[in-house]
Amino acid sequence: MQTGRVGRSVRVGLDIGGTKTDAVAVTEGGEIIARSRRMSGYGDEAVVADVVESVQELCAELGISVSDVTSVGVGIPGLVDTVSGRVLHAVNLGVESLDLAGRSSALLGTPVIVENDVKAAALGAAALRGDAVSMAYLNLGTGVAAGIVIDGVIWRGSRGTAGEVGHISVDPNGRVCSCGQRGCIETLCGGGALARAWGRPGALPVRDIFDAADQGDSEALRLRADLARGAAAAVRVLVLSVDIETVVIGGGLTSLGDRLGDSIRSALIADATDSPFLRSLHLDERIELLPPGSPAAALGAALVGVHAPQEEIATHG
Amino acid sequence: MQTGRVGRSVRVGLDIGGTKTDAVAVTEGGEIIARSRRMSGYGDEAVVADVVESVQELCAELGISVSDVTSVGVGIPGLVDTVSGRVLHAVNLGVESLDLAGRSSALLGTPVIVENDVKAAALGAAALRGDAVSMAYLNLGTGVAAGIVIDGVIWRGSRGTAGEVGHISVDPNGRVCSCGQRGCIETLCGGGALARAWGRPGALPVRDIFDAADQGDSEALRLRADLARGAAAAVRVLVLSVDIETVVIGGGLTSLGDRLGDSIRSALIADATDSPFLRSLHLDERIELLPPGSPAAALGAALVGVHAPQEEIATHG
Repeated sequence: MQTGRVGRSVRVGLDIGGTKTDAVAVTEGGEIIARSRRMSGYGDEAVVADVVESVQELCAELGISVSDVTSVGVGIPGLVDTVSGRVLHAVNLGVESLDLAGRSSALLGTPVIVENDVKAAALGAAALRGDAVSMAYLNLGTGVAAGIVIDGVIWRGSRGTAGEVGHISVDPNGRVCSCGQRGCIETLCGGGALARAWGRPGALPVRDIFDAADQGDSEALRLRADLARGAAAAVRVLVLSVDIETVVIGGGLTSLGDRLGDSIRSALIADATDSPFLRSLHLDERIELLPPGSPAAALGAALVGVHAPQEEIATHG
Repeated sequence: MQTGRVGRSVRVGLDIGGTKTDAVAVTEGGEIIARSRRMSGYGDEAVVADVVESVQELCAELGISVSDVTSVGVGIPGLVDTVSGRVLHAVNLGVESLDLAGRSSALLGTPVIVENDVKAAALGAAALRGDAVSMAYLNLGTGVAAGIVIDGVIWRGSRGTAGEVGHISVDPNGRVCSCGQRGCIETLCGGGALARAWGRPGALPVRDIFDAADQGDSEALRLRADLARGAAAAVRVLVLSVDIETVVIGGGLTSLGDRLGDSIRSALIADATDSPFLRSLHLDERIELLPPGSPAAALGAALVGVHAPQEEIATHG
């Protein structure tokens, strides 16, 4: 019955994170009909296995054959050559250089398209919003980067640095960034930079910062304010350069929920107090937080396959 | 003979600046076949007259009738409603609210399209470069703003703030900007902000700053460095958000020529010293200065007419 319902038109999308891998099966109409989650493996073989086994698992759940899957899209952190499907420097996954598209496609017999995880999530977030208005997906995770979607299509730019707002400096006297500059937006609102600046033990340093700030800890108050002003700066950069309509905020830090959203909104409002120009932009009304457990990233990866040019799919298949 | 050569396919473009108005006649193929310059008038009537008389002058020079002009495009500083052709708050021209398209179109009997001057100049600079690669035109004048051209089309964004990089803050302890924020890029490299910070008499304050810096004046050295780091920040913002390939720098400050270009290139190189990431972007090789007297802005205004939708032209005609 499942087979009859989904027919031969299922696309699979995977979001391979440093910790978890999220996979969805999607109809041609974009409806999610199955979902599976697993812990992410470490190293080339384990990452390829994550792709292959996730697809097999979803097919088993749907009662269809892997050959019924039209395309598999994979969102993965690191540098991605979307044409060759090769992944470079995915440090958290123990991958230095891996032909992920070629290897998993050969094992599955299905075209596999690989995409940077933030760009894939941006596409998924745009699809979940269900409108064609321009938007940016601002990922607040260990690092900070944005994906831009215009008229339903990922904005790629000229050399692959579109949306790299995390490495725009907004304070010449700020902390030194892992990129070598000083005062980058990522030094203010990146989870990794905040954990280093906090420097106390704990599995969830940014949550610890918020909790300690609630208790009046001065260092925590300072870092919580940094987070909010960094994210607010990223929103302003995106609106005053690309001029996207909406900024959807995702990434690990959104597990803080309203505590995060409220602090960013407050920073946007406070920063605009003395500027009629900024106030006229209503930036605090133009941000949204992705809800916890949102399938945006995996959904976006599935949709990457829809937009990939046919010859690109053929190369991988 | 002229009439025979240009036929009925001439477009006129005007760049109405605070001081001068530059006008060009362009063939359908984009070739400039006539050019005229005049001092800009002040106030509604004078600005309308600038448009009408510039068109008449070019037609007389070419030996054609005004009715042979397919469209007139006008680039003008201030807020422009490109659909209605109305100009708002063009302070330097003494214009508060003017139906420039409607009034000049009625007098000429030709469709008139009005565009923000920076966006028009961006289109012209892209046409002069003669390639389809994405680029930004960074205007360093009294104020600072960029126009973005992708695949030969002006990037408009969602609410009209695309390219407003002048009002991105890059220093929380910087000077207060006319927009009310602190440390905006415009406070560092806008001609108006530099003149106010310099505060000494003189008709060409930015040139005076460069000359005094050459003589070792410490305040001038500081302001010259500010100019370079502000422009460098604007270039980085454009590449790390929109990811354009090239930044063409124009505006009044480019009358400084190589002195300006060299100082911006030096700042881009110095800022990248400690950042392998920034060095990999080769930003110093991706900027160009518009040569003095370039017709980019007027040419771009002529081309605005080519891309304007037909119904929009009809409304104005």
